[in-house]
Amino acid sequence: MSAQPEAGKPQRFRARVEYDGTDFYGFQVQATERTVQGEIERALEAITGAETRVVGAGRTDRGVHARGQVVSFSVVWRHGLSDLHRALNAVLAADVAILDLDPAPEGFHPRFSALRRAYRYTVLNRQWPSPLERRTAWQVTGKLDLDGMTEASQSLVGTQDFGTFGQPPQGENTVRTVFRAEWQADGARLWFDIEANAFLYRMVRSVVGTLVQVGRGQLLPQEVASFLRARDRSLVKQVAPAHGLCLMQVDYVAREGV
Amino acid sequence: MSAQPEAGKPQRFRARVEYDGTDFYGFQVQATERTVQGEIERALEAITGAETRVVGAGRTDRGVHARGQVVSFSVVWRHGLSDLHRALNAVLAADVAILDLDPAPEGFHPRFSALRRAYRYTVLNRQWPSPLERRTAWQVTGKLDLDGMTEASQSLVGTQDFGTFGQPPQGENTVRTVFRAEWQADGARLWFDIEANAFLYRMVRSVVGTLVQVGRGQLLPQEVASFLRARDRSLVKQVAPAHGLCLMQVDYVAREGV
Repeated sequence: MSAQPEAGKPQRFRARVEYDGTDFYGFQVQATERTVQGEIERALEAITGAETRVVGAGRTDRGVHARGQVVSFSVVWRHGLSDLHRALNAVLAADVAILDLDPAPEGFHPRFSALRRAYRYTVLNRQWPSPLERRTAWQVTGKLDLDGMTEASQSLVGTQDFGTFGQPPQGENTVRTVFRAEWQADGARLWFDIEANAFLYRMVRSVVGTLVQVGRGQLLPQEVASFLRARDRSLVKQVAPAHGLCLMQVDYVAREGV
Repeated sequence: MSAQPEAGKPQRFRARVEYDGTDFYGFQVQATERTVQGEIERALEAITGAETRVVGAGRTDRGVHARGQVVSFSVVWRHGLSDLHRALNAVLAADVAILDLDPAPEGFHPRFSALRRAYRYTVLNRQWPSPLERRTAWQVTGKLDLDGMTEASQSLVGTQDFGTFGQPPQGENTVRTVFRAEWQADGARLWFDIEANAFLYRMVRSVVGTLVQVGRGQLLPQEVASFLRARDRSLVKQVAPAHGLCLMQVDYVAREGV
């Protein structure tokens, strides 16, 4: 139960958001298309009666999903936090949900305060498409060499110039720190978990597309390291499709031991 | 590469089928609604030019999914097996796929030859709905007591009269043999795996609804055993929704050691 705020004074909130990206033109508001940001702004306006700007941690592309996108917004709200949470989920479409809602810490910004982002990419390595996973996994035919993909992934870890694999969302700096880049498998299903302080535009999808080329034997594992050193975007011949990608988590507090 | 069959002589095939049940009115053909059987029959007619009857192992309800439904059909086909397989998946809508296609063994019938069926029911035990799992998991709020649900599930195993939990699809016999009835959990996600020689109509959903009542503390674990003994369908107060259910596997050969 939160204390009653001063009447009329906006409060800043932080929310963790899950969405099915299939029917959105990405996160960021666009003039005419349906976006996640636009959908949350619409819900806030429906509840509070005021136009509200929503800021997100990651501007996910069209078709990309999230289980842990983080957003913030300021609204005038005279009732409890759980009332706002319930009202938002009641008004939001079925393909977006607010999982956590908290008062934002002082000076909090979803993007600039973030220390670490985790993305997961799902590959379904089998001959035939999957009706049940057609919205959330990239179906890749032909047996992939998981050992080669794992070996190649190791060269991504560390503080390096990732200019080969993407463009910065702003400015010119293409140096990022990748903390983790790992493949896991369960039968035909492969997951690539990658965590970094921040990502370049299309970086995860460019990395996954290139690693799948390694898995197919079209590239040697060690070529990924030389691609990185080359800082040449023309080396990326395959960008994995958006629908296999999911923003899993954004961290604002350093994790212990990592 | 299969040998060339005699021209004009129909061959019988067996197929393993995955589908997303969301946009189907169940498996079985209906006059006006879209069904899985109807969709496969439509694809076969488009490919062979002949009206073809498809028989399935389980007549899954509207909204129920499958990763391992088994069907059979007879068609005249002059080309290879893999050509038919490719053609079918090319013509089928994105929410159905043929995973395996083989010549049917002599005398094979998807339903009558089946020795064992495995269903999985997925529960998402959390406060807020999941956009990414809204089509495949039943969201249940309030912490569920997994130990109680597991204890109650044990009373289902064995050869018993399951008349409390469903109606026979034909005839009067409500005795079935349940080989396995187990819950697993991974965070908020719970899976109930149940395997039996055959199931009654709505049996899995009635069982899951009742077990979730146990998980909520509305029933004691041992009440499930007394429900079974009572053979009284009015005792089932909650039937789990269809969209959490998936037909995983149908076995035609006895498994070793089970």
